[in-house]
Amino acid sequence: MTLIRSWIESANAPDTDFPLNNLPYGVFSLPNENKRMGVAIGDKIIDLPKLVENGHLSHANLIPNGHDNPFLQESWNDFMALGPGFWRFFREALTKSLSEGSDPSHIEEALVPMAEAKLLMPFRVSEFTDFYASRHHATNVGTMFRGAENALPPNWLHIPIGYNGRASSVVVDGTDVIRPQGQLKGPNQDVPSFLPSRRFDFELEMGAIVGVPSDGPISLDDAMANIFGYVILNDWSARDIQAWEYQPLGPFQAKATATTISPWIVTAAALEPFRVDTPEREFDLLDHLKDTGPMLYDIDLEVAIAPEGKDETVITRTNYREMYYSSAQQLTHHTSSGCPMRVGDLLGSGTISGPSKESRGALLELSWGGKEPLTLDTGETRSFIEDGDTITMRGAAKGDGYRIGFGKCAGKVLPARS
Amino acid sequence: MTLIRSWIESANAPDTDFPLNNLPYGVFSLPNENKRMGVAIGDKIIDLPKLVENGHLSHANLIPNGHDNPFLQESWNDFMALGPGFWRFFREALTKSLSEGSDPSHIEEALVPMAEAKLLMPFRVSEFTDFYASRHHATNVGTMFRGAENALPPNWLHIPIGYNGRASSVVVDGTDVIRPQGQLKGPNQDVPSFLPSRRFDFELEMGAIVGVPSDGPISLDDAMANIFGYVILNDWSARDIQAWEYQPLGPFQAKATATTISPWIVTAAALEPFRVDTPEREFDLLDHLKDTGPMLYDIDLEVAIAPEGKDETVITRTNYREMYYSSAQQLTHHTSSGCPMRVGDLLGSGTISGPSKESRGALLELSWGGKEPLTLDTGETRSFIEDGDTITMRGAAKGDGYRIGFGKCAGKVLPARS
Repeated sequence: MTLIRSWIESANAPDTDFPLNNLPYGVFSLPNENKRMGVAIGDKIIDLPKLVENGHLSHANLIPNGHDNPFLQESWNDFMALGPGFWRFFREALTKSLSEGSDPSHIEEALVPMAEAKLLMPFRVSEFTDFYASRHHATNVGTMFRGAENALPPNWLHIPIGYNGRASSVVVDGTDVIRPQGQLKGPNQDVPSFLPSRRFDFELEMGAIVGVPSDGPISLDDAMANIFGYVILNDWSARDIQAWEYQPLGPFQAKATATTISPWIVTAAALEPFRVDTPEREFDLLDHLKDTGPMLYDIDLEVAIAPEGKDETVITRTNYREMYYSSAQQLTHHTSSGCPMRVGDLLGSGTISGPSKESRGALLELSWGGKEPLTLDTGETRSFIEDGDTITMRGAAKGDGYRIGFGKCAGKVLPARS
Repeated sequence: MTLIRSWIESANAPDTDFPLNNLPYGVFSLPNENKRMGVAIGDKIIDLPKLVENGHLSHANLIPNGHDNPFLQESWNDFMALGPGFWRFFREALTKSLSEGSDPSHIEEALVPMAEAKLLMPFRVSEFTDFYASRHHATNVGTMFRGAENALPPNWLHIPIGYNGRASSVVVDGTDVIRPQGQLKGPNQDVPSFLPSRRFDFELEMGAIVGVPSDGPISLDDAMANIFGYVILNDWSARDIQAWEYQPLGPFQAKATATTISPWIVTAAALEPFRVDTPEREFDLLDHLKDTGPMLYDIDLEVAIAPEGKDETVITRTNYREMYYSSAQQLTHHTSSGCPMRVGDLLGSGTISGPSKESRGALLELSWGGKEPLTLDTGETRSFIEDGDTITMRGAAKGDGYRIGFGKCAGKVLPARS
């Protein structure tokens, strides 16, 4: 795939996250204005309510009868609910209007400089599920907690292991995160204490957004078709709260403080040219989970940490293709019991760790449980996140002379409540 | 507390679930009509949109400025969002209008026979959390799975253990439940198979409904005040799916098929006279969880099972006061990490088992993992639920000559999808 050239020059720059091939969907506000839906293109945002106001995006062919205008909402949920046919129709129409050679006039009036916009939550999260699907991550964590022989739980190579998270705690890039308090108990303490977490961590993940509801088990191909798009996701994790609480029913408050997502929904359509195969299977997957084609994406990812007032250091670089299970396999498994899925359900991929030390997706792994602190470019060391640190995740699929970027997924950690 | 007599005679009967002291909130439909909000009283439902239509429930004193009429919605969420002051105001006004001696005319016109109504989901579940807070249940299950010495996990006496469930799967009384399929692996099998669950079970619980949103940690007294009301809850559970999937991140598809709730929200206000103490603590709870007064309720509960086309047998009788943790303690713990709570969040108490064999809240315990099948009054035996079985839960707090009932929480299990 090559760059689709646009009459918006900044969209043709090889280093923009938002060429015409991308067209990700977001929600933004300008100073003193209401939330608005927008599409990123180069260094601009297309202000969709403005297009509507100017008489566009409301043609009978575009908006199905009996629906509110999906471009005048505060999230992309209503748009998603119109279904994959409508998603394709809109993307094709927009691609045509923005292509080099098209008449720019009606869109030009609705362009807003991205630098002036505040980016907001792009969709309402119905429910949030988090998975555990990188073999390297599961092996690393398992080795630390249970020893190398028992690193991978016996079900891991058969089930895309997941647990339900907390949708109310999902926030967008740029939101500060207050260090959680919780019950902590050291190995030499008889009873726990209620204290600020000392082992607060990030987890580098991708989030898949369900755009089509379902009411019973769905096939892998349907699951692939039902995923509207992807964001980068930081599943903030309090390792010490988790260690004490997680037996026998799994992580709960350790994961409930916040989950940060990048502000632009990069559609599955934009990522289509970057599909890659899942890895070879050690055991055949059960029929309903068996790969039907390339189901992962080749997306480079990185995480940087910046102590308060200082430059950032990139501390890991990995790729979404490292996963053992695709988000479609996770979604199929999620529905296998008959669990209904709704528009706006968010599925976290699980921490994305590669095979090397430098490609691990969490400080827990990077510092090997705190035993091997990282040295940052500033000379400071880190085992876990300290107050004032900003964690920034970035990612992009890289084509020939262009990139499908996600924007950034950043959050600063503030001291615990006193 | 004694019965508050009403001019509606059926509300004064000692065996009605719905005396004037109760006034639970629901949503119903009549044949060929839209969903409507209603209040149960004796064998009638007060049709609230009808009251509005007749010029009531819209007085400036009643509906705050700038709000849609909360009685014309399809759920009680908007009503709840108006806050505890409004809850009290409405309950007091209604109690007055329905009391013996009040003028019946304007309400009489809006009464509907409950027998003609179909009862629907009374509120939109924002998110669903399920706890594990009966010591008898946790000890029974722990003994079966880990032996008597390790029955209670070390954190259990300090943390109200919980996990996030799936809101999309919550259904109302009377909804059929299709037996789930899932990955099952017997101890002598090398790899799992995808099959219908063979150990499908109920769990008898109470559900607490959060009516006030919060954005950070809240105190126990605030938690108590933020709970709007209660329902009976059946957390359907596939024990064999759970056994294979639940390590290390907890139950997932085993609990995602369905959770059934009773159709009437019994308010915390109606239950107030039935508050009872939590049990003595083996360890002092941490300060933020320390009981500030009687926080449980004296509510008798029972479960009956009816094979297809046959009479039911009551197989357990227990009481909500058997819990170790109150729903307020669960809610405070839930927010301790900063987790935001929203109107319509539903907290399952966890299976309510009493100390005796006859008071256990799940077939897993009643049949001791299938080793001691129950004999029903029909002569049949049950270790777990069979296709065609209907499970019915009922409950009531019992006052002097009256009862605060919940209606029923029933579901029939249909064969797995083929």
